[in-house]
Amino acid sequence: MSAEGAGKNDFSPGLEGVVAAKTAVSEVDGANGRLIYRGGYLIEDLAPAVTFEEAAYLLWHGELPNKSELDALRAQMAEARKLKDSTRSVISAIDFDTDPMDTLRTAVSAQGATKTLTKPSPEEAIALTAVVPTIVATAHRRRHKRDVVEPRPELSHAANFLWMMDGQEPAKERIHWLDQYLVMLADHGLNASTFTARVVASTGSDLTSCVVAAIGALKGPAHGGATFAARTMLDNIGSVENVDRWMADQHAKHARFPGFGHRVYRTYDPRAKILSEIAKTADPKLHQLAAHTEEVALKILHDAHPERPNATNVDFWASVVLTGCGIPKELFTCVFAMSRVAGWTAHVLESLDDLRIIRPASVWIGPEPGKKPQPVDKR
Amino acid sequence: MSAEGAGKNDFSPGLEGVVAAKTAVSEVDGANGRLIYRGGYLIEDLAPAVTFEEAAYLLWHGELPNKSELDALRAQMAEARKLKDSTRSVISAIDFDTDPMDTLRTAVSAQGATKTLTKPSPEEAIALTAVVPTIVATAHRRRHKRDVVEPRPELSHAANFLWMMDGQEPAKERIHWLDQYLVMLADHGLNASTFTARVVASTGSDLTSCVVAAIGALKGPAHGGATFAARTMLDNIGSVENVDRWMADQHAKHARFPGFGHRVYRTYDPRAKILSEIAKTADPKLHQLAAHTEEVALKILHDAHPERPNATNVDFWASVVLTGCGIPKELFTCVFAMSRVAGWTAHVLESLDDLRIIRPASVWIGPEPGKKPQPVDKR
Repeated sequence: MSAEGAGKNDFSPGLEGVVAAKTAVSEVDGANGRLIYRGGYLIEDLAPAVTFEEAAYLLWHGELPNKSELDALRAQMAEARKLKDSTRSVISAIDFDTDPMDTLRTAVSAQGATKTLTKPSPEEAIALTAVVPTIVATAHRRRHKRDVVEPRPELSHAANFLWMMDGQEPAKERIHWLDQYLVMLADHGLNASTFTARVVASTGSDLTSCVVAAIGALKGPAHGGATFAARTMLDNIGSVENVDRWMADQHAKHARFPGFGHRVYRTYDPRAKILSEIAKTADPKLHQLAAHTEEVALKILHDAHPERPNATNVDFWASVVLTGCGIPKELFTCVFAMSRVAGWTAHVLESLDDLRIIRPASVWIGPEPGKKPQPVDKR
Repeated sequence: MSAEGAGKNDFSPGLEGVVAAKTAVSEVDGANGRLIYRGGYLIEDLAPAVTFEEAAYLLWHGELPNKSELDALRAQMAEARKLKDSTRSVISAIDFDTDPMDTLRTAVSAQGATKTLTKPSPEEAIALTAVVPTIVATAHRRRHKRDVVEPRPELSHAANFLWMMDGQEPAKERIHWLDQYLVMLADHGLNASTFTARVVASTGSDLTSCVVAAIGALKGPAHGGATFAARTMLDNIGSVENVDRWMADQHAKHARFPGFGHRVYRTYDPRAKILSEIAKTADPKLHQLAAHTEEVALKILHDAHPERPNATNVDFWASVVLTGCGIPKELFTCVFAMSRVAGWTAHVLESLDDLRIIRPASVWIGPEPGKKPQPVDKR
């Protein structure tokens, strides 16, 4: 037993239920199925009412911007959309068929590289948030051997991303659906990637290091990678007629259903509810398949584990809405990062108020010390 | 109060004393001033007896290699020293005077990029550990506008790094001092960067993402950046005559002394003890200055806080030994990463046995929810 940890705490795997920060950025009220954003806004009130830029401002500053504050933020973000020459060269240097999340991780690291250590600042939070879509779209077009499309300063964050990805004027509805998605996914308490960002920040490191680390955490299939996995499941099912048999087969093989279950929500995920409504219009055909899949999945899960909440989570319905926005599934996790970077940076900025290195204890399960190393030829 | 955390745990800032993992990779026995490596070896027994390659093998596999296992590892590492063409281009794309840790973060991200998500493996741990020195040396020579020196397969890990950095045959003593440093810094329980790597791994992400995240955490001055800070303090003091006045001045300004104090050690850091011995030979002049600085610092700290342990930590004496090895101080944190990558990867591999997403709880300190967003022109 680790001397410093002895008796002070029991071990909670995955730090479940262990408080790791006080925060006013967002709160996942799992018992009541509520997600609260900074200032006291419930996600269901905020999502239909604001753009991503306003939500990001809220997370960074604690209140929604007025007209002139919003105009100033938009101008600042439009300016920061441009890639540095070095970042452009880095994207060109990487094999074109690299996992888009690996390219994003590398290019954000390059874009945010500096000569000397800098303390995280709101300006940098804005710059990193503004540039992620440019990196994602640039790498995507290169992957498909198409010319890079430059950002347009007069477009909103969501609209400009669709423009850079497709090289054509995006339809209004697609912009709105994507914008609502970006607002809803922008923060979510101490999720694993946000916690990663806070651990990195706790050493006094820079904001780019925090964001690059968080991108790596988001990539995992138990975190941001789940949206891709949910869509892949729907692709594999293929059509409504196949749902019952496919799900029963998977369940018999003890496979998990991506898009169901959550560490914190004990009732339902409010974002899943809103996204399932949007999905009806965004992609009616995929919505139909998804709705039946959801019904069957919840029944199977409830029969197998009646003691668990077994709710649909955000990843399931996000996969349908992003499909309706015209985003290829290989970019789902990158688009998640486009949104969550606002939350990552807001958490890091908040944590600076009372910075203390995050350095937990561990329990030693190795042998008693004292073994002597033998010379290599006697081993 | 977050619903899921309520009453379960009090908040421990920095997760001090909170157990976040069970591990057999290493144990910091702070109460007794002991560092135990996998298998039950005390660091003072291991450091003089093995090379970095043997220590890394121990951390990865649980026992020291025999002759043929060690030969196989050396061959595998020599092969993995080569940069991918894309990594070479990435290093060339970055501004030459970029912080070496930012270049390392970006280039490791590029070197480890893959087409699809891969599960962390021992082969990848070896490959990442083997390539870090090549990246550090390549970027360093470019920074100083010198030709890149290719790795040599017949040299040891430590010798090859000095060769690539300097482009000349390193003296035996320098190789040995560096090797001992690399063995001693290779792992240290759940320090912040290792914990970062474990959090990223817990989402099911890849090993490169874990290592890139850990590099970002190590960069902070409260973590790996402290060796640079300790050497900078010694540079600022300048000579033995200045020590008393300089330290008293700093203390009066409430400045911290880098290289003193530790979260876990309650007595002394065994690595500092070994390194201070090596420092006597590695850099006798700087050792003299450092020894007097240590004496004065400990007296000041003890007078001010007699209740604290106030011990010298590893960073203080590491800064002298690395100087004796001929390593410029701008590379100190990178050389720390060269060593600790063995521990990061060993912890990630161990964590795969029982992977559970690390997702702690938080305490909500924002307002009660229910505020309605006003339209932008009414704010």
